[in-house]
Amino acid sequence: MDHNSTSINNRKPEKAHDIVCADDHGEETVEKEEDQSVEKSFESKEVPPWQKQLTFRAFFASFVLSVLFTFIVMKLNLTTGIIPSLNVSAGLLGFFFVKIWTKFLEKYGLLKQPFTRQENTVIQTCVVASSGIAFSGGFGSYLLGMSEAIAKTSTEANDSQNTKNPALTWMIGFLFVVSFLGLFSVVPLRKIMIIDFKLTYPSGTATGHLINSFHTPQGAKLAKKKVRSLGKFFTFSFLWGFFQWFFTAGDGCGFVEFPTFGLKAYHNKFYFDFSATYVGVGMICPYLINISLLVGAILSWGIMWPLIEKRKGDWYSATLPSGNLHGIQGYRVFIAIAMILGDGLYNFVKVLGSTLLGLYHQIRDKNTGSAIPVGSNSSPPNTPSVSYDDERRTRLFLKDKIPTWVAISGYTIFAMISTATLPHIFHPLKWYYIVVMYIFAPTLAFCNAYGTGLTDWSLVSTYGKLAIFVIGAWAGASHGGVLAGLAASGVMMNIVSTASDLTQDFKTGYMTLASPRSMFVSQVIGTAIGCIVAPCVFWIFYKAFPDLGTFGSQYPAPNATIFRGIAILGVEGFSSLPKHCLTLCYVFFIGAVVINGLRDIVGPKWARFIPIPMAMAIPFYLGPYFTIDMCVGSLILFIWETVDKAKALAFGPAVASGLICGDGIWTLPSSILALAGVKPPICMKFLSRKNNARVDTFLGN
Amino acid sequence: MDHNSTSINNRKPEKAHDIVCADDHGEETVEKEEDQSVEKSFESKEVPPWQKQLTFRAFFASFVLSVLFTFIVMKLNLTTGIIPSLNVSAGLLGFFFVKIWTKFLEKYGLLKQPFTRQENTVIQTCVVASSGIAFSGGFGSYLLGMSEAIAKTSTEANDSQNTKNPALTWMIGFLFVVSFLGLFSVVPLRKIMIIDFKLTYPSGTATGHLINSFHTPQGAKLAKKKVRSLGKFFTFSFLWGFFQWFFTAGDGCGFVEFPTFGLKAYHNKFYFDFSATYVGVGMICPYLINISLLVGAILSWGIMWPLIEKRKGDWYSATLPSGNLHGIQGYRVFIAIAMILGDGLYNFVKVLGSTLLGLYHQIRDKNTGSAIPVGSNSSPPNTPSVSYDDERRTRLFLKDKIPTWVAISGYTIFAMISTATLPHIFHPLKWYYIVVMYIFAPTLAFCNAYGTGLTDWSLVSTYGKLAIFVIGAWAGASHGGVLAGLAASGVMMNIVSTASDLTQDFKTGYMTLASPRSMFVSQVIGTAIGCIVAPCVFWIFYKAFPDLGTFGSQYPAPNATIFRGIAILGVEGFSSLPKHCLTLCYVFFIGAVVINGLRDIVGPKWARFIPIPMAMAIPFYLGPYFTIDMCVGSLILFIWETVDKAKALAFGPAVASGLICGDGIWTLPSSILALAGVKPPICMKFLSRKNNARVDTFLGN
Repeated sequence: MDHNSTSINNRKPEKAHDIVCADDHGEETVEKEEDQSVEKSFESKEVPPWQKQLTFRAFFASFVLSVLFTFIVMKLNLTTGIIPSLNVSAGLLGFFFVKIWTKFLEKYGLLKQPFTRQENTVIQTCVVASSGIAFSGGFGSYLLGMSEAIAKTSTEANDSQNTKNPALTWMIGFLFVVSFLGLFSVVPLRKIMIIDFKLTYPSGTATGHLINSFHTPQGAKLAKKKVRSLGKFFTFSFLWGFFQWFFTAGDGCGFVEFPTFGLKAYHNKFYFDFSATYVGVGMICPYLINISLLVGAILSWGIMWPLIEKRKGDWYSATLPSGNLHGIQGYRVFIAIAMILGDGLYNFVKVLGSTLLGLYHQIRDKNTGSAIPVGSNSSPPNTPSVSYDDERRTRLFLKDKIPTWVAISGYTIFAMISTATLPHIFHPLKWYYIVVMYIFAPTLAFCNAYGTGLTDWSLVSTYGKLAIFVIGAWAGASHGGVLAGLAASGVMMNIVSTASDLTQDFKTGYMTLASPRSMFVSQVIGTAIGCIVAPCVFWIFYKAFPDLGTFGSQYPAPNATIFRGIAILGVEGFSSLPKHCLTLCYVFFIGAVVINGLRDIVGPKWARFIPIPMAMAIPFYLGPYFTIDMCVGSLILFIWETVDKAKALAFGPAVASGLICGDGIWTLPSSILALAGVKPPICMKFLSRKNNARVDTFLGN
Repeated sequence: MDHNSTSINNRKPEKAHDIVCADDHGEETVEKEEDQSVEKSFESKEVPPWQKQLTFRAFFASFVLSVLFTFIVMKLNLTTGIIPSLNVSAGLLGFFFVKIWTKFLEKYGLLKQPFTRQENTVIQTCVVASSGIAFSGGFGSYLLGMSEAIAKTSTEANDSQNTKNPALTWMIGFLFVVSFLGLFSVVPLRKIMIIDFKLTYPSGTATGHLINSFHTPQGAKLAKKKVRSLGKFFTFSFLWGFFQWFFTAGDGCGFVEFPTFGLKAYHNKFYFDFSATYVGVGMICPYLINISLLVGAILSWGIMWPLIEKRKGDWYSATLPSGNLHGIQGYRVFIAIAMILGDGLYNFVKVLGSTLLGLYHQIRDKNTGSAIPVGSNSSPPNTPSVSYDDERRTRLFLKDKIPTWVAISGYTIFAMISTATLPHIFHPLKWYYIVVMYIFAPTLAFCNAYGTGLTDWSLVSTYGKLAIFVIGAWAGASHGGVLAGLAASGVMMNIVSTASDLTQDFKTGYMTLASPRSMFVSQVIGTAIGCIVAPCVFWIFYKAFPDLGTFGSQYPAPNATIFRGIAILGVEGFSSLPKHCLTLCYVFFIGAVVINGLRDIVGPKWARFIPIPMAMAIPFYLGPYFTIDMCVGSLILFIWETVDKAKALAFGPAVASGLICGDGIWTLPSSILALAGVKPPICMKFLSRKNNARVDTFLGN
């Protein structure tokens, strides 16, 4: 579910969100300049050669931000798997870091090179590449899904052949051999996608606008204000996390267990858990996503699970430990999977269809001479006449070429290394599976990059799940099919996700006149940073919180269970499901397809009142608590927009980023405290009146 | 301590606070008009005859507000005894009620009489008179101090002769016979104080300005905005109180027990108890009061008590129950009393001195023909030339006279009834004590009204304590001296407090052209309402919360213990004090005098950095928790003022009033729930890590 969930919640919100940002900048700076050409206003500023765009300070800032964002993404991975767009925060913080740096040097007359938008793009790209690994590395999905802890929740396929516990060494090795492939597969596509097909890449374009706006005088002023409000909420959120920590001396302690709506609601996981992160995420995600989550939460934890729990002992054994997939947990996981697969399949077919249709038109139009891209639900097509901006951007984009032979040989070398080493890491993953995947991978990478360019909707998770099914079934249950499937999905997801993310980045580079060559170097460095930083950060979490991945714990890592569940389904078939679960799965699978169909039929005007099945499925497993946080975030934004729309649009994303980043970075000291064995002094406990009376008598003695 | 403490915290903040309001209005409406005369801008509006100023709607609104404010004042009485000025809230809410009423009638064409500022003054006066009873009725001080529960904290004078438990009947009777005397004693003074002496009465003047400003067009607009922000925070505060309730299933549960600064600080009562009321109070009280409270809290609970507690078993018996006046509690109570008496005595002498000096000047100047009042620390003297405003105001003020024979015969009749009935209520209070008191009372009432007019500082509590000492000693320990003293202080405080409060009201009436006759009727009605509503509200609290007056409970009613402590000191002498307590009392008594002297010597510029001993003494008994709430309020206001000074000054009091009123009115449903036996479902408990582990094991079994 992971990347599909994040494909909605990463890509889609990113889109909606960055469009908001783009609108905002549009209103304030870009639009005005757009009339008189953005590039004309930058004409006086020289574009530095590509080597000069790669400065030490840029990579230093990138490294710091990479660590920060890896923590944040990891925390999100391991709590809900919902990852909002962090582009704005990365943009703002990158700008902030280097601005301070240059201000400081300027003061002492040491500044040799002014801070350019190209350099800013390099930072952005590097951070996106490295924090992307934190997601596509599967620490909250396939990698953790291999561990014994997750395997124990089911009686199927939990033998040593099908499990592999995380270890720092093999994780770093694995990432290094699979992560660079996507990078190389993108290089030859770059020109086709951006110059020839003129795909929109809404997120990349929006980020480009954002960075451009930072470097105009009034844009810089606004950016400074935004940075200040980000900083304020960052501090608040960090301190709030710190304050909360003191009251979490044991299980069930602290604000995260606050039974806001009473104990009965709490037992069904309806409560507000005071998480600044998810309030921020709620402010970034579009209202529809939050409403969909809430609808899903009410449907599942409010209605279905309580009803199914009444059948305990009949539909499933009453003696199973909580969290076992053969009990109530099975319904939660597999119905969620059904819905996710239904939604994923629908969109896969849809996006593939529009990809093929788009390609067909592209080629046909190319032959007839014009170049109008066809986007199913993308932004309006670019103007066909080549404007000053386009001309200048295209010229600079094509200046520093990366030779195709570099790309092809790079891909081949890494594919060979990967084929040779991966079977040693995952024994059930035979070398010929890998070869087959690497043959198909560039095509899939192209499809995904193209689809994202058209619709801003990346289907990484769906490709990953496809790989689980195909390779898992091929290997078979008796030959470690579950492990093979999970590993295969990792290989596939890394390539496909890198391809689409980095093409977005190239679009950003195109917008800001950054050299493709400097971008490529930045991506390589970013990926390398990610391959080391991400496993290390995960390792801190893994060591500091031993119950990682356990249902109901602080870090339940829902996607790990869901990915493993998919692998088991693929390998073992439906025999492992509890009673009536399969029927319910069919209903929800078809339901997801129908709802999606409905959304497309009624058109965008009415679709915004129809919930998105993918988003609905997420709380099925986890429970409604984070949904309530997100709705609180939505509510805050809504009220803010009612009071002062312009300010809410301009500063909302900065505030949200502050909330997310502050709480995210608090996980660093929090895990260090956990590792050092420092325990919080107080437990804020919530007892029913009856239990409280018992406890008072007990403590009185 | 009660009224002295409130003399600071009721009168002084009222002063500071209403001066803020006056400034504010000054800036926005009054000042501008003052240049061109306030009354000229009202010239077109006819002043209705006095009978028409007394409308049904005014008394209906007054009654509703009386109940509201009685609840609020009672809550404040019983929690800390710090009562901020509620004039602004009463003004705003009165305006709001009648405005809605008239708007509604106007819509249907039923409005016969427009809402005038005279009517508004009538409401204000009625509410002040009735909610004044909630304070001077001594429900948090002398009346409760008579009860057995309070008497039990000491071994001295806890026999049946010296105790009298509250009962609805005798309390209402007592209030009716003593409360009207002050009213009659004021009537003849009215003209002397306001027209002849032209005393400033800062609070009354400020309230007059406030009401005038409501009835100018732009003033009404601003008032509406203020009402809206009051309403918003009222709702928030009410809902917050409601939400908190759910988590208070037992002792030590809920937000009021939140160990914000850790468990160790909590045991010394250093914590933020999330009380919206005291955050609001902190916003109204001047910074100096809040800082003084904090300094006192740190001195006592941070330093002195922990040190004295180390002497447990040496200085005082280690086996005493907590709350016994012979243990650590004795130090807390008697050192606080010493400081309060030191401060009270200093100010008594000072104010009496300036009263006499002022009178001397008045009479001398009168003889020489001019009328320049001399105020020690009052506002600048009025301009001696009679302006249009003064002329018009004086004419209307003198139009509707109240004959002096009404006042004298009223006073005599009530004094006779009182002398006849009070000994039946309090057996140790002989009739001749009462006669003596009633002979001296008008003089003291005059002194207090005059002193308040000059300095805005009402010394009600000091007069009450004087009565405790004199009558208590006269009766003697063996003849129920403690009870007699407490009852005598009640008689005295009622007269003296009514006298000063109502003269302030007359000043307001003077400013708004309200007829003295309508004011008098309104005061009579308000007092009657207060005599019935206040005991009933107290009765609800008394029945709903059985541990009322117990140290450490939700309603510790600190002044009840302190008043009884004073009575015991007066009757029994110093023999009842624990070891070294007397020495410490001397030190703090002298300290209070010295600090006050210092404050006067260095002048107002530096005095604002020297804490006020009276305020310092309050947390000595109660602990720092409410101080921290109040400092939070101060901090909020401070930040607000830094961000937007004009808005903070204009809306701060409204927001604070909203917070106080919302939380205050929540006590109504909360006590009804308690009476109905509805208990909250959840306990939010705070356990140390060790205890939490024990509890988890216990509950696990």
